[in-house]
Amino acid sequence: MSTTGKLILVRHGQSLWNLENLFTGWTDIDLADQGREEAARAGRQLLEEKLMVDIAFTSVLKRAIRTLWIMLDEMNRMWIPIERSWRLNERHYGALQGLDKAQTVERHGEAQVKIWRRSYDIPPPRLAADDERHPRFDPRYADVPAAELPAAESLQDTLARVLPFWHSRIAPELRRGRNVLVAAHGNSLRAMVKMLDAVSESEIVELNIPTGVPLLYELDAQLKPLARRYLGDPAAIAAAAEAVRRQTEKR
Amino acid sequence: MSTTGKLILVRHGQSLWNLENLFTGWTDIDLADQGREEAARAGRQLLEEKLMVDIAFTSVLKRAIRTLWIMLDEMNRMWIPIERSWRLNERHYGALQGLDKAQTVERHGEAQVKIWRRSYDIPPPRLAADDERHPRFDPRYADVPAAELPAAESLQDTLARVLPFWHSRIAPELRRGRNVLVAAHGNSLRAMVKMLDAVSESEIVELNIPTGVPLLYELDAQLKPLARRYLGDPAAIAAAAEAVRRQTEKR
Repeated sequence: MSTTGKLILVRHGQSLWNLENLFTGWTDIDLADQGREEAARAGRQLLEEKLMVDIAFTSVLKRAIRTLWIMLDEMNRMWIPIERSWRLNERHYGALQGLDKAQTVERHGEAQVKIWRRSYDIPPPRLAADDERHPRFDPRYADVPAAELPAAESLQDTLARVLPFWHSRIAPELRRGRNVLVAAHGNSLRAMVKMLDAVSESEIVELNIPTGVPLLYELDAQLKPLARRYLGDPAAIAAAAEAVRRQTEKR
Repeated sequence: MSTTGKLILVRHGQSLWNLENLFTGWTDIDLADQGREEAARAGRQLLEEKLMVDIAFTSVLKRAIRTLWIMLDEMNRMWIPIERSWRLNERHYGALQGLDKAQTVERHGEAQVKIWRRSYDIPPPRLAADDERHPRFDPRYADVPAAELPAAESLQDTLARVLPFWHSRIAPELRRGRNVLVAAHGNSLRAMVKMLDAVSESEIVELNIPTGVPLLYELDAQLKPLARRYLGDPAAIAAAAEAVRRQTEKR
């Protein structure tokens, strides 16, 4: 029997800008009430499965941090160590951040927006260096070398900055036998799923991780997946994934 | 001008067992509603003072962790690193934990209880090694060497396990120029105040740190205090300190 720890990935639930249909990226938008309920349900599911989490990782964005806090509160595990990293942030959506998704479709066409949202290696338009939305003006990134701070990212770019954190911080905890919870974002979680499940570039862009549904991996000593499953009701999971897909459609 | 960081100490506010007048110690009791309000007010006070906290330390007990979470939420600084340590826990109250304070006074006499509560170096009765309240049965202390886990502590014992954490983890961050917030407990905070302000053993047992009132230290390069003050309304601070003193009185 393997003594490798279990891995649980959770994507944060509905945020206030999901409700308003705006591109969010690194904008630090809070959870909506529904997102808080999704987090509480996710915490209760881990509790029901008797999954004892030993350490948690999250981004430096409050919608992921609050998801984690609510889960730990439900699980009565507020005392476990939490490590935050910008490397677990959502994909940086560049100059699209703060724009209305439907309006962006009207202006640039559905095909172009689909390329920005769903291509593997094409980033959206970059933020100008003097744009006040640029992360270099945000104190939470003060310790990140300027050359590493993105002004826009493709999914490939996101993967490239998530994976060093996986190898340096998350993988060692799993190898020590710790059960690890990662509360993060659609695209930073895709980076881990792509690597763990050897998903192709064309498939990963179509893979929608549902929000608020814990994805449990059991791993061997080389951190290869032995089994994976979503926790909870299958119909609810399918509905959550479909809701994510529908976000690009014009209203 | 010194570039040493500022230090802010905050004692958690009213817990559910404060309300019930029970000895708490290491029992993991949550904040009462009033305690949550105290934490929110403390967060707003740091915000009003424009005190930007860079890193926070807390215990592994939820009344301190929740105080910190509520403060960081109010300050919009949920993204800063938080480090938890058992060394910042409240004093371990041994076999008194869970007992009613007034009943304990009736049974053992006010003089004896005052000795347990207010002497510098006399611990309360120890927990038996097989007592289910013993910390060796709690997974949050699984990584703490058995010889270091207390079954009861005097204030002196508490100081002895707080100060290594001060020197190894808190002091280096202050020297790096980081503003440090410590959200902890009456006695773990006394350990730091005693050392910083060179308070005598007889004086420290009479010093009551009010709950939910940030205590701000400005420090020189050797971490000697240049100035200290409580943030907020002086009358409210005096009332909070008086409320702590009154807890030992029989009802």
